[in-house]
Amino acid sequence: MNNGLSGPYDIEGADSLHEECGVFGIFGHHGAGALTILGLHALQHRGQEAAGVVSYDQGQFIAERHPGLVGDIFGKNSGYAANLKGDYAIGHNRYSTAGGSAVRNIQPLFADLTGGGITIAHNGNLTNAYALRSKLVQEGAIFQSTSDTEVIIHLTARSSKTQVVDKLIDALKQVEGAYSLVALTSKKMIGVRDPFGVRPLVIGKLDGAPILASETCALDIIGAEYVRDVEPGEVVVFTKGEMESYHPFQKVKPRFCVFEYIYFARPDSMMEGQNVYQVRKNIGEELAREAPAEADLVIPVPDSGVPAALGFSQASGIPFELGIIRNHYVGRTFIEPTDGIRHLGVRRKHNPNRATLNGKRVVLIDDSIVRGTTSKKIVQMVRDAGAAEVHFRVASPPTKHSCFYGVDTPNEHALLAHEMNLEEMAKFIGVDSLAFISTDGLYRAVGEERRNPAAPQFCDACFSGDYPIRIVDADAKESQLSFLVEA
Amino acid sequence: MNNGLSGPYDIEGADSLHEECGVFGIFGHHGAGALTILGLHALQHRGQEAAGVVSYDQGQFIAERHPGLVGDIFGKNSGYAANLKGDYAIGHNRYSTAGGSAVRNIQPLFADLTGGGITIAHNGNLTNAYALRSKLVQEGAIFQSTSDTEVIIHLTARSSKTQVVDKLIDALKQVEGAYSLVALTSKKMIGVRDPFGVRPLVIGKLDGAPILASETCALDIIGAEYVRDVEPGEVVVFTKGEMESYHPFQKVKPRFCVFEYIYFARPDSMMEGQNVYQVRKNIGEELAREAPAEADLVIPVPDSGVPAALGFSQASGIPFELGIIRNHYVGRTFIEPTDGIRHLGVRRKHNPNRATLNGKRVVLIDDSIVRGTTSKKIVQMVRDAGAAEVHFRVASPPTKHSCFYGVDTPNEHALLAHEMNLEEMAKFIGVDSLAFISTDGLYRAVGEERRNPAAPQFCDACFSGDYPIRIVDADAKESQLSFLVEA
Amino acid sequence: MNNGLSGPYDIEGADSLHEECGVFGIFGHHGAGALTILGLHALQHRGQEAAGVVSYDQGQFIAERHPGLVGDIFGKNSGYAANLKGDYAIGHNRYSTAGGSAVRNIQPLFADLTGGGITIAHNGNLTNAYALRSKLVQEGAIFQSTSDTEVIIHLTARSSKTQVVDKLIDALKQVEGAYSLVALTSKKMIGVRDPFGVRPLVIGKLDGAPILASETCALDIIGAEYVRDVEPGEVVVFTKGEMESYHPFQKVKPRFCVFEYIYFARPDSMMEGQNVYQVRKNIGEELAREAPAEADLVIPVPDSGVPAALGFSQASGIPFELGIIRNHYVGRTFIEPTDGIRHLGVRRKHNPNRATLNGKRVVLIDDSIVRGTTSKKIVQMVRDAGAAEVHFRVASPPTKHSCFYGVDTPNEHALLAHEMNLEEMAKFIGVDSLAFISTDGLYRAVGEERRNPAAPQFCDACFSGDYPIRIVDADAKESQLSFLVEA
Amino acid sequence: MNNGLSGPYDIEGADSLHEECGVFGIFGHHGAGALTILGLHALQHRGQEAAGVVSYDQGQFIAERHPGLVGDIFGKNSGYAANLKGDYAIGHNRYSTAGGSAVRNIQPLFADLTGGGITIAHNGNLTNAYALRSKLVQEGAIFQSTSDTEVIIHLTARSSKTQVVDKLIDALKQVEGAYSLVALTSKKMIGVRDPFGVRPLVIGKLDGAPILASETCALDIIGAEYVRDVEPGEVVVFTKGEMESYHPFQKVKPRFCVFEYIYFARPDSMMEGQNVYQVRKNIGEELAREAPAEADLVIPVPDSGVPAALGFSQASGIPFELGIIRNHYVGRTFIEPTDGIRHLGVRRKHNPNRATLNGKRVVLIDDSIVRGTTSKKIVQMVRDAGAAEVHFRVASPPTKHSCFYGVDTPNEHALLAHEMNLEEMAKFIGVDSLAFISTDGLYRAVGEERRNPAAPQFCDACFSGDYPIRIVDADAKESQLSFLVEA
Repeated sequence: MNNGLSGPYDIEGADSLHEECGVFGIFGHHGAGALTILGLHALQHRGQEAAGVVSYDQGQFIAERHPGLVGDIFGKNSGYAANLKGDYAIGHNRYSTAGGSAVRNIQPLFADLTGGGITIAHNGNLTNAYALRSKLVQEGAIFQSTSDTEVIIHLTARSSKTQVVDKLIDALKQVEGAYSLVALTSKKMIGVRDPFGVRPLVIGKLDGAPILASETCALDIIGAEYVRDVEPGEVVVFTKGEMESYHPFQKVKPRFCVFEYIYFARPDSMMEGQNVYQVRKNIGEELAREAPAEADLVIPVPDSGVPAALGFSQASGIPFELGIIRNHYVGRTFIEPTDGIRHLGVRRKHNPNRATLNGKRVVLIDDSIVRGTTSKKIVQMVRDAGAAEVHFRVASPPTKHSCFYGVDTPNEHALLAHEMNLEEMAKFIGVDSLAFISTDGLYRAVGEERRNPAAPQFCDACFSGDYPIRIVDADAKESQLSFLVEA
Repeated sequence: MNNGLSGPYDIEGADSLHEECGVFGIFGHHGAGALTILGLHALQHRGQEAAGVVSYDQGQFIAERHPGLVGDIFGKNSGYAANLKGDYAIGHNRYSTAGGSAVRNIQPLFADLTGGGITIAHNGNLTNAYALRSKLVQEGAIFQSTSDTEVIIHLTARSSKTQVVDKLIDALKQVEGAYSLVALTSKKMIGVRDPFGVRPLVIGKLDGAPILASETCALDIIGAEYVRDVEPGEVVVFTKGEMESYHPFQKVKPRFCVFEYIYFARPDSMMEGQNVYQVRKNIGEELAREAPAEADLVIPVPDSGVPAALGFSQASGIPFELGIIRNHYVGRTFIEPTDGIRHLGVRRKHNPNRATLNGKRVVLIDDSIVRGTTSKKIVQMVRDAGAAEVHFRVASPPTKHSCFYGVDTPNEHALLAHEMNLEEMAKFIGVDSLAFISTDGLYRAVGEERRNPAAPQFCDACFSGDYPIRIVDADAKESQLSFLVEA
Repeated sequence: MNNGLSGPYDIEGADSLHEECGVFGIFGHHGAGALTILGLHALQHRGQEAAGVVSYDQGQFIAERHPGLVGDIFGKNSGYAANLKGDYAIGHNRYSTAGGSAVRNIQPLFADLTGGGITIAHNGNLTNAYALRSKLVQEGAIFQSTSDTEVIIHLTARSSKTQVVDKLIDALKQVEGAYSLVALTSKKMIGVRDPFGVRPLVIGKLDGAPILASETCALDIIGAEYVRDVEPGEVVVFTKGEMESYHPFQKVKPRFCVFEYIYFARPDSMMEGQNVYQVRKNIGEELAREAPAEADLVIPVPDSGVPAALGFSQASGIPFELGIIRNHYVGRTFIEPTDGIRHLGVRRKHNPNRATLNGKRVVLIDDSIVRGTTSKKIVQMVRDAGAAEVHFRVASPPTKHSCFYGVDTPNEHALLAHEMNLEEMAKFIGVDSLAFISTDGLYRAVGEERRNPAAPQFCDACFSGDYPIRIVDADAKESQLSFLVEA
Repeated sequence: MNNGLSGPYDIEGADSLHEECGVFGIFGHHGAGALTILGLHALQHRGQEAAGVVSYDQGQFIAERHPGLVGDIFGKNSGYAANLKGDYAIGHNRYSTAGGSAVRNIQPLFADLTGGGITIAHNGNLTNAYALRSKLVQEGAIFQSTSDTEVIIHLTARSSKTQVVDKLIDALKQVEGAYSLVALTSKKMIGVRDPFGVRPLVIGKLDGAPILASETCALDIIGAEYVRDVEPGEVVVFTKGEMESYHPFQKVKPRFCVFEYIYFARPDSMMEGQNVYQVRKNIGEELAREAPAEADLVIPVPDSGVPAALGFSQASGIPFELGIIRNHYVGRTFIEPTDGIRHLGVRRKHNPNRATLNGKRVVLIDDSIVRGTTSKKIVQMVRDAGAAEVHFRVASPPTKHSCFYGVDTPNEHALLAHEMNLEEMAKFIGVDSLAFISTDGLYRAVGEERRNPAAPQFCDACFSGDYPIRIVDADAKESQLSFLVEA
């Protein structure tokens, strides 16, 4: 689990969903490079594999793009932070699957255009990137990465428009998918959200300098002021002293990703006017009403289950306790148990507090169930610690479908809820009772009366299978993107 | 704060107390090196600066001692874990102040004796190490480290006894201070706690193989069974298939460190028969009774204040909320704010959740106040987020005195409670009310009726100034220990 | 000096000329990656800043491109050599000036074309690269490097031809300059020399597998057989089992770089049918005839002056002695003398052998004089060691003009021979007499009767100013190539 | 081969002899650390595995001891050079066999004594170190290294004398073997040569500051003045402004190592009043007289055979040519040929110049034959290049015995000359004729009339088996020195 409460790496946790990116930009403030680094640090939960910052100073763009955590990359001894001179900078945190982890994919990407450079950082996923890429390659474009963001760069470079903002809009009109992006030229910072506004992007301000960030927590870390969210389909362009706003795309009804509330975002962030922590507590309260349990304790799976568990506890009156202790010191490539000791049931990340659990009837709260394997292990661990009963409550509806809009999900056949009904799932993970929040309950927690099936207020495709944006590349495999292999 | 809930590095947190070590040993189990690494990982909260493991295999001791976190040192790519062959191993986590961070100080230390080697890992602090060291140097002993543990090694090597256990006991009879240590020879594993039992040490068992560890959470991680605590003043010696126990020191009334309960230990550990999490909750309940507050929310300073805050909330009925969000992704040498951005009040580690705090009267719970500077910043941060009132409650009595028994504390003149009275402290940190738990309240939380002033049940010298062991080296400075400087 | 006798880095030697590249390729031999590494090792004198190998295996190109020496990059511990699977591979050694040392410039470069990839390694310099690049950028091409080789890649990708060899030829017809290049696709290895054949490229064979290499010494290291030189203007294409040869460019009279004989090539290489060592000895013999000296000893400036000094000694009868000892252990970034010790005249690389030189009249032989500052220091050093007279003989004509065909030369105003006449030069470097070999003497040493002024047999533009290929980019500066700065 | 002409690593050359150390010290000069680094750089040929410098500044000794070459360790980016503050410094280059390569063995070693520290760098080998070490361990001494130098440190620390110089002399009176050592305290620099003076040590001066160094080339590099050699059995003590000299050991007839002239020393060094280059040339001249050959060319095995080959050429009139070209760019851990390409006869280090050798009768000159395997390969290589005849001449007598005085030699049964007679050796290495210089010829080359069998002027034990110092530890194995294994 990777929200604001969580630790560096979830190495036992291939069984969770992963956001693919966080973006940040600041335009016209002393120390822009360092501020961007701090912004990325606050957004670390959105991507832990690599981070990059590109700043602009005196006619040159300066890039530092490296694998690892922000705090490790930009440590005092690296000198990278000091290299990032200038008052303009944008940055990017990257999560990626193993195959696409090459250094050449670390954003922000950069291109020299005639008359100047442009650098782009992107959160989301294009659903027609493969088709566009194939066409571009046929026309002689040379791709350096396998990132879909590079498609946007090439389309921008090839646009027949004369102004860079027009070139970028021209490019974006050709792409489909979910994207929140931040771009920087020597004269402008640009922010864009796709027409459906699937991924978040907010505008902030520090000492008068505009900021773009995936979440408000990246404003808080540097003491910046929140201004407003970028609107779905909006292009905001900052030049010295002013902001222009465009809506160049065809208007559609927004569909913000509801999973941002459930799991991805940091609890202290505000999204579309809602406090994430409060939404999660609301979910817990809804769950307590929808699926009560006779129990002695409410126990969260730390850290992401904590707010919902507090909500459940407050609504049900059953005491909230830390029955599972999480070890946050887990290194990136920590040793795997060898065959000889695997049978021991090594517990590197979570340990049950036997003194709390022993003999107790427990309500266990987690944010979601993906493959189910982790849930099964945690339930077993809680039972081994002496719990008399385990009632599992899940702070999201059953995850039945893959995401194509920027979240790394397994194939739907690997999703427990796609393959089993509730009873089968309860048996599989070994609980006395199992309940998920209802879709309408979830919508209530986010402030809607209920889900509007005719025009859903959110993207909930992972639960409903109702995909707002068509998936052109559905059959394309990433392995076909390049013939080159390089670390 | 560095208990089981906390993140890798507290870089804004020079203003807290630090335990100096965790120790672990396992004797006669396949994969002893890997098991020791896992044990140290579970004990990471006791020391994050460096870690070492020494295993024994086929006539040779193999050492891997490196700076950094266990999970980083023993990552898959390092190969260090694979080097640690053999069925016997001991290990050590180290915390140390900047001056003593040299690689040569990383434990376990090793010595070739005639007929075989011995390796020792030590948690605690000797109070006559400087005096003994000076005498040994005068006699021609050559010290390679500035660690007090090396004094024990030299005394052992110079003992006129013939058996290695007798040599070690001979050495320990000359030292004073707090120590829990684990030693390994080619034939035996030895565990010792000082006569007062200031530092913890427990005995466990895995598939019949004996284990020694600072805390029970290091047993849990590998699925080992808890057997019992090593007794104060006890020497336990494990040879193939059997355990011997000795009590070679003069018997004194034990004085276990009460701060282990308050802050150092992981909440899921059992210490002297008590669950640490439960003790902390008890403290919160006592605090709620001793120092109630009219308030809307109980907010912990994460992560160490959480159990006491839960106890306070349950006893007072005031809702517990996560009003401060902690970012666990803080790198070891993360960039410092430059002058240009320092005024921004950068918040790398903690962020208040404004939506929760705004307009509320808050009870803020922390485990202790050391210098007071962090408390002051947190209070200001909570107020800036809109809290209407801040009532600070501290889960320990005022920390007025330095520790000489293995905890890195500042000079007493740097301790807020040594320099100010309650009213002054409240003003300094800027709260509407301030209260510490009473000493008797603390003792009640740990299961005693009250503190026995004639024969206190615990070492509480940091609160009371009542030092059970004399401080021979009180005037010696670490900087005098060696003329050599080396990274 | 960087010929086969010389050490890793000439850190006191910004005052010498530098070849920019060595190339190697092998097609259809087990262990192609390792063989290419060895070939590059033999060609290390042609470029010490970085090296890269791209191999092809089972549908994928695998790249390892890193800064440093071949032997350091591909050390046992790096694992890079093992990654380079497959039977096809090409490689490149790079020399570059500081500004262009970015990792993104390390060759071979790679591009995904529709239907497959192509990778190219290039030795030489294009003289219209800047103009072509500007045009390509205007058309939307995105450059990832500042290397002129990337221009060839883009032109190839954009060619309207359907076959990859035709595309490459199409591209090369648009470029001007000196180039010897090796390219690899999934089905072919291609070698090309520019129409003037300025840079060398030879064909070899190992167990039937064809090889392309800058020099024959790269064949020798793996025990391969020399077949023939690629002809100026020739394109050779190797497919499984056969070789095709094309001459697609307009035919011109070849102008091989005469400086390859004087300095760049390894003495054991054969170039255009001539043994480099023998040519250098011939030069020394010519020099002895053209500019004899009354002296006791002939002393080479090691290592590049050795063959000419042996020739001079044998022709003149004056004994050859090692009067200057060279230290080959010079690290890449070895400490600079600090201000406090700079006056000491630190001699990291060369030391005079006082016992040999003291009281002697010395003929000092070096391959060339560039800025003259090194010559001046060496002369002073030899005098300080007691030499009675110093007669400086130079194994090349005066270097008066910059090279634009792949050799890193200073601006002509920094060239001593451009700014001074012979007498002034002699005075500047402090010698009793100074002589350069005549241009005709040089041509005789290489086997010609004399230089044919109407149609010179070699490119000797650095001596004559007679540039065979026009310099379209003469006014373009490298710093304008990209707005991006990245290590 | 590792003399002044040679490259970084002789990776194909386990078949040569290796000196174990170079030492350097400077006392009372600004920038002492940097000057020591430069001195060690000049002495790099005496040990390439590791280097260390310890400086003294303001009450503290500062150590930088690392594996690798001086120029790599103390590169600009490491910061190590800058750490070495102060006006006093000593340093050490280390060669070692694989088993003893641990970081803990890198010299100079250091010990805290009562009242101050002492640091020692040592070139040579003690012949009773194992016996002394065992006794010391029995008395409780704790060894941190397996270096024999540490024995000296312990004996010094345990001495009952009160002055540090007396303590050191007291220690040295107990050791046997060959040693040239440099020591530094906070007030004195001390230099010592063993009574036989087996290893070299010279005194120099820079701006009035005294210097100690293994060879004069280390004085030359910093422009320092040569004063005199330390005498066999002499102890020189430098304090501020003055030098004292002691001869505390029993006087014996000196036996300087004659192999220093043949191979170890740099050719530009002066040893005991003789120029090494000149001695080597003399050997070549003697060889030409003792063992003439009908031949067309004299070819050295580069680089160590060059001076003797020049002498042979000048005495015989047969032309000297570079028939074998050496590649100096050989990395430390360069890839080994894999099985698939091993049969190719990869030639990473030496390549024959076929154009020079083809059809010629060749006199091949090398400094020595150890195992004979390298000689065999080189002869084969020269034959493969077309040589008509190969007459091998060796610049030393047959190496029949191991060295115990600081040179890493194989067991005598691995020495070709110990196992075979001349005829067998000629057949083994495949030459038309083979000759070694005679012992008297060697002595003549070094300026003696002949070897005095009653009282040999040099240590020539490796040729004669006449060991001047008894080998107490002959049967002790290094693997018994410590039970600890650590990188």
